[in-house]
Amino acid sequence: MDRENLLDQMQTEIKNSIPSHSVDCVVIGYSEEKLKVLTLKFKNTELWSLPGGFIEKEEDLDAAALRVLEFRTGLQHIFLEQFYTFGAKSRGDKQQINTILKKSGMHSGIAETWFRQRFISTGYMALINVDKCALRLDILSDEIAWKSHDELPFFVLDHKEIVGKALQHLRNQINYLPVGITLLPEIFTIKELQKLYEIILQKPLDRGNFQRKILKLGILIRLEKQLLGKAHKAPYLYKFDTKKYKELLESGIGFIS
Amino acid sequence: MDRENLLDQMQTEIKNSIPSHSVDCVVIGYSEEKLKVLTLKFKNTELWSLPGGFIEKEEDLDAAALRVLEFRTGLQHIFLEQFYTFGAKSRGDKQQINTILKKSGMHSGIAETWFRQRFISTGYMALINVDKCALRLDILSDEIAWKSHDELPFFVLDHKEIVGKALQHLRNQINYLPVGITLLPEIFTIKELQKLYEIILQKPLDRGNFQRKILKLGILIRLEKQLLGKAHKAPYLYKFDTKKYKELLESGIGFIS
Repeated sequence: MDRENLLDQMQTEIKNSIPSHSVDCVVIGYSEEKLKVLTLKFKNTELWSLPGGFIEKEEDLDAAALRVLEFRTGLQHIFLEQFYTFGAKSRGDKQQINTILKKSGMHSGIAETWFRQRFISTGYMALINVDKCALRLDILSDEIAWKSHDELPFFVLDHKEIVGKALQHLRNQINYLPVGITLLPEIFTIKELQKLYEIILQKPLDRGNFQRKILKLGILIRLEKQLLGKAHKAPYLYKFDTKKYKELLESGIGFIS
Repeated sequence: MDRENLLDQMQTEIKNSIPSHSVDCVVIGYSEEKLKVLTLKFKNTELWSLPGGFIEKEEDLDAAALRVLEFRTGLQHIFLEQFYTFGAKSRGDKQQINTILKKSGMHSGIAETWFRQRFISTGYMALINVDKCALRLDILSDEIAWKSHDELPFFVLDHKEIVGKALQHLRNQINYLPVGITLLPEIFTIKELQKLYEIILQKPLDRGNFQRKILKLGILIRLEKQLLGKAHKAPYLYKFDTKKYKELLESGIGFIS
């Protein structure tokens, strides 16, 4: 699309949205023993942001977050949870807004006025399987990428704080969140599950304790071993009993403290 | 104040506020073995609401909630925590708005337009000592009262849902919240502290376990018994070691699961 069309599209979106409020999504995945965060780079800059958007006049706040995520990831059934609303009067560096608008060719008219507003932004956390995503750019960005939680890029505004708060929410609420079933591949070992918990909680867990407690919950289904070759020496593989897992989450898994 | 002045005051507030966003406060106290919620009755109606307000253009979201609470309770150092933002496109019954505006004499001009907007509202939970409050009405209400969590009045809009979500937050986050120090009188027995936890969690706790765990935390200071009359048969009295209590909250008290 050329600049004219982009501006038209942006103007339509702005006219259909309520003022002063946005959503920002911290999309969390997991691979190679790292938590990953989905990030976007603004066109022709080194400024990164979280996927976000505005709320249509006739749209629920939750639905806006879901729409943003479907657009970015191609996924329809995403685990998504609101975790905090960011409402400091000065949410970061206004100069960055100027740079972004200029470098993306949006520095005129209705778009400029809109982006210079004060926004209160509601943060949503999504937990997804990185392998199932079809990532997509928008009209302000030229790169979209998964970044490790310990190697995050330079974020605009207060997006670094938003990520920090999301990861804290993930740790605090771990007993109420479907971390295993959303972040791991369908089939996994108990060791891999334990590693995921350790990465989220940022501390080692006792192996024997973990195994005993997780098995006692009754949410794991052990797969039959393939008895060919050396496979019988490999650790047991498991998958989740989805129904029991969901029932348990309702009351809190409560095995990690 | 007469109607003219009230309208003037309201108009000034509206002009200084950002559109489409409000705060609602669930102020929780404790007395006679009940959790109490601070509620306001709209003038000449039987419709009750939570104390709430708007966000000034140059004011942080958190500061707006604090300002609303200081006005209502006269308290300056309130424990206040954001817990959820309510953004359904239709947050309850619009007909109620008509009734409220009419009965309070606000059904004209800028005030009417303002209140008919769609609002996204951020919920804050405050924990306070009911005995220390000096309650105050505003220009839309004619009654302010503490209501027991199990005998709540008929709420406007989605305020019932907001209270429910706050109480759920209180339960889920009990290990990170200063419930004892904010809700109990300065001096208390372990039995009274246990009762508070039981009321919040809506379940009985084992007495021996509770006593052992809470004492082990090292946050209680035991007072010397008064050895006059029958007082030496009374249970021990305690107060909190404020410094240790606060340190412990940082990492999560973690003794209730």
